[in-house]
Amino acid sequence: MKSFGRMCSTLSRKPLWIFDRRRGIMRVGVDYYPEHWDESRWETDARLMREAGISVVRLAEFSWCKLEPEEGRYDFSWLDRALEVLHREGIQAVLGTPTATPPAWLHQRYDIYPRDARRYPLGFGTRLQRCLNHPVMRRYSRLITEAMVSHYAHHPAVIGWQTDNEFEANLCYCDVCADLFRQWLQRKYGSLQALNRAWGTIFWSQEYTNWSQIPLPWVARCGQSHNPSLWLDYRRFASESTVSFQREQVEIIRRLAPHHFVTHNFMGLHDSLDYFALAQDLDFVAWDNYPSGNWKEAGHAELAHDVMRGIKQKNFWVMEEQSGIPGWEYIGRRPAPGQIRAWAWQAVAHGADAVVFFRWRSCLYGTEQYWHGILNHDGIPRRRYREVARFGEEMNRLSAELDGTTLHHQVAILNSYEQNWALQIQPQVNGLSWWEQVRRFYYSFRRLGAGVDIVPIDADLSQYRVIVLPSWYILTERDAQRLSEYVRQGGTLIVNPRTGVKDERNVCRTEPLPSLLREVAGVEIDDYDPLGTDENRIRLHSGEEFAVSVWADALILQGAEEVAVYTRSIFAGETAIACHRFGGGTVYTLGTYGEPALYDTLLGRVLDEAGVETMPGVPEGVDACWREKEGARYLFLVNLSGEERSVPVPEGVTTLLGASPHGGMVNLSPYEVGIYRTGS
Amino acid sequence: MKSFGRMCSTLSRKPLWIFDRRRGIMRVGVDYYPEHWDESRWETDARLMREAGISVVRLAEFSWCKLEPEEGRYDFSWLDRALEVLHREGIQAVLGTPTATPPAWLHQRYDIYPRDARRYPLGFGTRLQRCLNHPVMRRYSRLITEAMVSHYAHHPAVIGWQTDNEFEANLCYCDVCADLFRQWLQRKYGSLQALNRAWGTIFWSQEYTNWSQIPLPWVARCGQSHNPSLWLDYRRFASESTVSFQREQVEIIRRLAPHHFVTHNFMGLHDSLDYFALAQDLDFVAWDNYPSGNWKEAGHAELAHDVMRGIKQKNFWVMEEQSGIPGWEYIGRRPAPGQIRAWAWQAVAHGADAVVFFRWRSCLYGTEQYWHGILNHDGIPRRRYREVARFGEEMNRLSAELDGTTLHHQVAILNSYEQNWALQIQPQVNGLSWWEQVRRFYYSFRRLGAGVDIVPIDADLSQYRVIVLPSWYILTERDAQRLSEYVRQGGTLIVNPRTGVKDERNVCRTEPLPSLLREVAGVEIDDYDPLGTDENRIRLHSGEEFAVSVWADALILQGAEEVAVYTRSIFAGETAIACHRFGGGTVYTLGTYGEPALYDTLLGRVLDEAGVETMPGVPEGVDACWREKEGARYLFLVNLSGEERSVPVPEGVTTLLGASPHGGMVNLSPYEVGIYRTGS
Amino acid sequence: MKSFGRMCSTLSRKPLWIFDRRRGIMRVGVDYYPEHWDESRWETDARLMREAGISVVRLAEFSWCKLEPEEGRYDFSWLDRALEVLHREGIQAVLGTPTATPPAWLHQRYDIYPRDARRYPLGFGTRLQRCLNHPVMRRYSRLITEAMVSHYAHHPAVIGWQTDNEFEANLCYCDVCADLFRQWLQRKYGSLQALNRAWGTIFWSQEYTNWSQIPLPWVARCGQSHNPSLWLDYRRFASESTVSFQREQVEIIRRLAPHHFVTHNFMGLHDSLDYFALAQDLDFVAWDNYPSGNWKEAGHAELAHDVMRGIKQKNFWVMEEQSGIPGWEYIGRRPAPGQIRAWAWQAVAHGADAVVFFRWRSCLYGTEQYWHGILNHDGIPRRRYREVARFGEEMNRLSAELDGTTLHHQVAILNSYEQNWALQIQPQVNGLSWWEQVRRFYYSFRRLGAGVDIVPIDADLSQYRVIVLPSWYILTERDAQRLSEYVRQGGTLIVNPRTGVKDERNVCRTEPLPSLLREVAGVEIDDYDPLGTDENRIRLHSGEEFAVSVWADALILQGAEEVAVYTRSIFAGETAIACHRFGGGTVYTLGTYGEPALYDTLLGRVLDEAGVETMPGVPEGVDACWREKEGARYLFLVNLSGEERSVPVPEGVTTLLGASPHGGMVNLSPYEVGIYRTGS
Repeated sequence: MKSFGRMCSTLSRKPLWIFDRRRGIMRVGVDYYPEHWDESRWETDARLMREAGISVVRLAEFSWCKLEPEEGRYDFSWLDRALEVLHREGIQAVLGTPTATPPAWLHQRYDIYPRDARRYPLGFGTRLQRCLNHPVMRRYSRLITEAMVSHYAHHPAVIGWQTDNEFEANLCYCDVCADLFRQWLQRKYGSLQALNRAWGTIFWSQEYTNWSQIPLPWVARCGQSHNPSLWLDYRRFASESTVSFQREQVEIIRRLAPHHFVTHNFMGLHDSLDYFALAQDLDFVAWDNYPSGNWKEAGHAELAHDVMRGIKQKNFWVMEEQSGIPGWEYIGRRPAPGQIRAWAWQAVAHGADAVVFFRWRSCLYGTEQYWHGILNHDGIPRRRYREVARFGEEMNRLSAELDGTTLHHQVAILNSYEQNWALQIQPQVNGLSWWEQVRRFYYSFRRLGAGVDIVPIDADLSQYRVIVLPSWYILTERDAQRLSEYVRQGGTLIVNPRTGVKDERNVCRTEPLPSLLREVAGVEIDDYDPLGTDENRIRLHSGEEFAVSVWADALILQGAEEVAVYTRSIFAGETAIACHRFGGGTVYTLGTYGEPALYDTLLGRVLDEAGVETMPGVPEGVDACWREKEGARYLFLVNLSGEERSVPVPEGVTTLLGASPHGGMVNLSPYEVGIYRTGS
Repeated sequence: MKSFGRMCSTLSRKPLWIFDRRRGIMRVGVDYYPEHWDESRWETDARLMREAGISVVRLAEFSWCKLEPEEGRYDFSWLDRALEVLHREGIQAVLGTPTATPPAWLHQRYDIYPRDARRYPLGFGTRLQRCLNHPVMRRYSRLITEAMVSHYAHHPAVIGWQTDNEFEANLCYCDVCADLFRQWLQRKYGSLQALNRAWGTIFWSQEYTNWSQIPLPWVARCGQSHNPSLWLDYRRFASESTVSFQREQVEIIRRLAPHHFVTHNFMGLHDSLDYFALAQDLDFVAWDNYPSGNWKEAGHAELAHDVMRGIKQKNFWVMEEQSGIPGWEYIGRRPAPGQIRAWAWQAVAHGADAVVFFRWRSCLYGTEQYWHGILNHDGIPRRRYREVARFGEEMNRLSAELDGTTLHHQVAILNSYEQNWALQIQPQVNGLSWWEQVRRFYYSFRRLGAGVDIVPIDADLSQYRVIVLPSWYILTERDAQRLSEYVRQGGTLIVNPRTGVKDERNVCRTEPLPSLLREVAGVEIDDYDPLGTDENRIRLHSGEEFAVSVWADALILQGAEEVAVYTRSIFAGETAIACHRFGGGTVYTLGTYGEPALYDTLLGRVLDEAGVETMPGVPEGVDACWREKEGARYLFLVNLSGEERSVPVPEGVTTLLGASPHGGMVNLSPYEVGIYRTGS
Repeated sequence: MKSFGRMCSTLSRKPLWIFDRRRGIMRVGVDYYPEHWDESRWETDARLMREAGISVVRLAEFSWCKLEPEEGRYDFSWLDRALEVLHREGIQAVLGTPTATPPAWLHQRYDIYPRDARRYPLGFGTRLQRCLNHPVMRRYSRLITEAMVSHYAHHPAVIGWQTDNEFEANLCYCDVCADLFRQWLQRKYGSLQALNRAWGTIFWSQEYTNWSQIPLPWVARCGQSHNPSLWLDYRRFASESTVSFQREQVEIIRRLAPHHFVTHNFMGLHDSLDYFALAQDLDFVAWDNYPSGNWKEAGHAELAHDVMRGIKQKNFWVMEEQSGIPGWEYIGRRPAPGQIRAWAWQAVAHGADAVVFFRWRSCLYGTEQYWHGILNHDGIPRRRYREVARFGEEMNRLSAELDGTTLHHQVAILNSYEQNWALQIQPQVNGLSWWEQVRRFYYSFRRLGAGVDIVPIDADLSQYRVIVLPSWYILTERDAQRLSEYVRQGGTLIVNPRTGVKDERNVCRTEPLPSLLREVAGVEIDDYDPLGTDENRIRLHSGEEFAVSVWADALILQGAEEVAVYTRSIFAGETAIACHRFGGGTVYTLGTYGEPALYDTLLGRVLDEAGVETMPGVPEGVDACWREKEGARYLFLVNLSGEERSVPVPEGVTTLLGASPHGGMVNLSPYEVGIYRTGS
């Protein structure tokens, strides 16, 4: 334990973190790697940061070899000096545990490399070259975490921690994982007899008579077409492995620095890992937002922001916000002028309380030489610096006002990583993937002017008037009861195809589909046609026709009313969509997936019926969000398009940022932002 | 040995199998997995089967772990009980030897996993995880086969056996295979000197001085571009390995249950294996017919049926007939209403004597959860059950009449797995593959109204008026003599490019092409241009022009007459097709491959010249076949299209099934079937 | 040592090689494999060769197993006999060291197989199955080379040597390579501290504390996305490994047969290897020219010829000239009539002094059965033989006149394998690859009628009026000084994007771009937009507009004048091209890559300004080159198109070959050739 008092005596030693209201929680930050640069540059960097309105940095998450240059010898001196320089400019720090890149000396001594599905060891030279289940990795992770947290627990500049970096499920195929998986199964099933029965290993003569016979889903004679029950348990195990690895670090931080926050940098729509479980041990979610092409949603960060806000159902940080061209060997386009600032304000509009830009300066070395920072390699403040500084000034100016605001919606889409994995294991047809389903509904609601929450099934469902259930492929009794109860109490539930197909073992249910939801939905599925990219057509009773694809269920009405009918073979005349009044609520069962206009038509009526408030008329390319706190509502308008847009704005708003309305309309230039207060 | 007398005393103990005429051989069956279901369901299943006209089931081919739950302990009790339930409903059984999926305990004790071309072991968890050459696999295969056949040799419900499941060539790259391959070569060539000379190993300095130096075609510095002579011998060896594996089982069955038939479920156009050799040890061929996309002939089962009938040149079974959506992780479309029945009748039209549907009920577990059966997971008889039941009723009604009929044609296409492998080893250009060549001729003949046999070169060629020889790439003296003799005796032979290029060592011949067929063809090839997907054009002497591609030989006439000439560079003016009268017959030498209209024009004249009977006017989408027996001919018309079709029908036919003709025409609704008797 | 005097007593024993003027250096040859054929055929072959004008053969480069059938027992008798037969017909020989295909007995005794990036051993059965760094391979290579050169040093028919065959960089991932790479690094960097600093291993915590920790770029968790500094050093090491392997052979030949020449068969645009370094040990470059599709320049041999001439900046041989259909399992189109001869004359036009056709006769055996020779498998002289013979007659007739001529140009494009590798390691965007850049300029200069040299940066730059610098991504002080000096002395330099980005460590420079060339270029790059396949547009000050793509730099003028401006977002109004007068010369800085018309317009003006002589008006498809010697200039016109072309020809030329001019124009039929003398 070291005293840092001397070097920063003029600053409060009281920990200052996210829930401290005195300075406001809204802040602008940057990811900084002082270890990449000559110390003589640090003061220039810190000054330029401060001048750009930056008040927080994330540090050290890839610096294990510098923090522990040889086994057991820790060296925090360089980081102490960096923190001192930063702190002098009023900048606080989030420290990363450096376990995503163990040092070479550790690998030389122990083989902790993860294995791929052919058991090939994924060795040194890039990153993530460690199996999170390996006991040696666990031990060294705890040791470096303890040393680091002990050292910085009472550092006045340090406010919190990021665990590791961009966790994924530990989809490793090494022998340690094989053994632990078998132990995990033993705990779960008790006996091999129970496991054989649960998985149905009689199929293809796979009954196990010894625990050691159970394989990981290694590449085999039929590729990786293993038993789907084994697959799902392996996916659960691999996800839990990562969660338990993180938990060891979190427990150390809680013990040694209980006044610090702990977070992790999530990856938006990444889905190898149960993000709900990972977040449970954290104070809040942070995530890495690269709108121009990464994390699967090219050019569309809004869905990912809402997914991230839904993980803990509260505001979040952006821990890495794109500030330039991204890429490794291949790189992307330069963001247009204004686009970086627009993306940053969009993050805030969707619930970010801090925006930390990645990264300060483009690195001279290594694989990410061209993952550009705010500064180019030459370190000279140019266009992107000026844009970030403009955002910094605005954000700091408005933070006192916006502090404490968050988003409230009447519509939700349920999210589940387990469903997602099960659909990855059996995609069945093109178009059935989890996020493709979520997108269909999400973007339709947004076009209709409704904000959307994306939440787990154990959220408080009663706060929502309308809930969408994407393929709830694996349906438990408990989930079925929660959903029935929600409808009974007056909610509107929208059920999609492939719901209730399996039980929690990933084994097919024998009840007619949608199995446990038959009664509440008032329908039974007689037959189905996996359309994939082929098409059928449906006609609503109101007369409109739409193309449908992906999947077609032929519904038998058992209390429900027909809403739409197929018009083409092989299901011409069969029911495609049904509506059932159940208890105080309503269930729409959709037997198929349609073109966007289908959802805009159908969901428009559903929102009307359910009395959901919407803000219609927002043109394409403009992202409109409301943040609220007691008495005050703040409308954020972000023009993400490269063209001017006119947006209707309520009467009597106060302009906090950007152009003022005229005649109920505001004109937003390309990539421009407006913030308007109403109420209070 | 157990007595089954008591439990089914009312039924004859006399074996009842395919050649027993008393009940007729035509029958409807289903593939059934009682081990996947609770025993309490078995009686319902058996009753529903009987009600659907089902009188035979295939059982047990993936149940090794249940038949021998631990080494040496056999348990047939569950299968006995299942057979009893089935037998009570009058259903007989074909049993599968369960060697496609050895149990986990066997793998735990011995490494018998096959290796891929990088020697990676293809381990447990899917199926086929065994090298058929491994002595341990051989031993355990014999043991389980002996135990099973001993137990069921005299069971009254058991009528025959299926060996293993869907055999492929044992294309394994393990050390056992390497050793056995070297021994195989030693037996074949006698000395290394002979092998070096035969393969031409002087090329690239590959002369072997020790047998152990000879590699399998493992992935090497130039991929798998090994010596083509080594490749072809390895393919022969891998095919023979599978045949000899099966032979061990067949010998046990012949010895212990000589009154039972033995078959295997082939895979249509699958071609890793010499199906002629595999079938030699069997009583008849059975095959697995999934018209909607599997076994390479999407939507076109007719060619595969005719290939399968040609293997032993007699009627066959369909051992797995598609009864629903197929697929593993990705799945296909639902068959249209009527399509399952149409496919089943199409099988009979092409020579099937039994149609066994795959499978009774969609499995709740494992990789094939979505390879749908007649029943969905919910076990409730729905649309597909009703359709199968309709077919069952019809088939059982007509079986006495149709029993003993088979197909007779005047046109043949020669088939050879060895040519096929040699072309796989050296595809040369796109379009030259074996089946692509066969298809060009097959579909043209069918459009012209001629039925086609697809037979080996050692068939009785004299029964055919016209024979097509696809690229007979490897030409032996013996084959050349057979073909010359066929022509000399009056036959018409159609010779395609790349005939006679190689000798049986897969070494290029030094005679001018078409080498040993030069004299009979009356042409010599001066030069060739591998067109691939590029085009040239030809003009027939009768004036018509056609696009050609794939390959162009420039023919020099040495006795033949020119039939067509190239019209474009680089062979403009050269002979493209020639015709030679030789002995009593005729040889057409085709120097290139053309658009369909070329074949329709040319083959139309050839059929006329040769006096082949045809049935013209059958519209596209309708499959027309004749089955015959003494004095009676039966016309099968199957409308495989989704639209109504009008088909000309001979005068005075008797309608056995479907719509009756009016004015010489019959109208077939979509997927409808008609059967008409003429003569006797 | 053996005396060959007896068998060829009538021929001079004085070595006759490329610089011997008595018989002229221009000659026609063929690649011949007597070991593939029965000896009884050799005399026929040799006679047919002579009759076709062939006077040189290349022999023996794949015959190790026949030269050394068992360890230490050499057998040259068959090669002696072959040489005798050839020599009798006046044919001389180039012998290949046979080290591209070590014999099976060597591999049986030692594991010298190379490893791929997953350490999988690339074993026996194709070719190149040896790691060039393995000490065992080195030893056996020296032994066979010494034995062979000792035997043939004084053979009257032998004139020179080809080392190995088609060398590539030794991109092997075996443990021997790993160890040698570490030793190589130790020599280069001295200490780990220096290496860590040089590579910036602090990024992703990769600092090494022991030499043995350094990996080869094996496949890892993030594929092969290793540190680019490690990658570049590995590429240098792998290239040097091959060069040093060859050097051992060259030293033996120089010592034992100093009167023989030594060459190697290069591969045109192949770029894994530093061809400048490889050629340094050789007398001249030879290369393998397959215009129809190989070595990456389908249908365009001219660039590859000029690259090959630039390696040693002097005339070269073609050691393998396409004489038919090429290919392995898949094969190409037959060359059109006349095309083989046209390609051969094109080679001479670009500086070839000998054209050796591959190969005499299509081999009956092995992987290259369908890499066709002059003769087909049947060995009968047909069309291609007659075409080669025509070329042979012409070449031999003109060789006395053309002997000693070579090409001289005023325009150069700089070539560098190191830049090429660095761009392969980080392609950044589509279109930035080395050869794609070279092609843009090369073909524009050729369209404008200017011949082009393609030379290393250490060539005598002062001979050129205009020099193009493709992305000189890695810029050293020394290179920057050479280029500055060239401009200062009056040269015109054209600089492309991504110049000066890195230093020799493959680490980003911190100076504003184009870093060390900022002063001479008079510009600084403020920002860049990696366009890839997206587009922007630019407008020259002279008014023309052009589409641009791949990359866009926004130039800040610091002394230069603007030549072109971007017209579209995101850089609308920024400078795209600038021109700077510096010392006596001029620098054009191109911030982007354009459509062909941009180069035709811009380079047309640059050539005018710089006073470069051009020959305009040569139509597309005609390749026009000048060879010169004291006082005489020879114009070669080769019509590579399949259509007639009219070409302007200077007044008063003498026709040496082909059609004579009328009215200043000559008409060339498809694939026809004309040679015209002017001057003296």
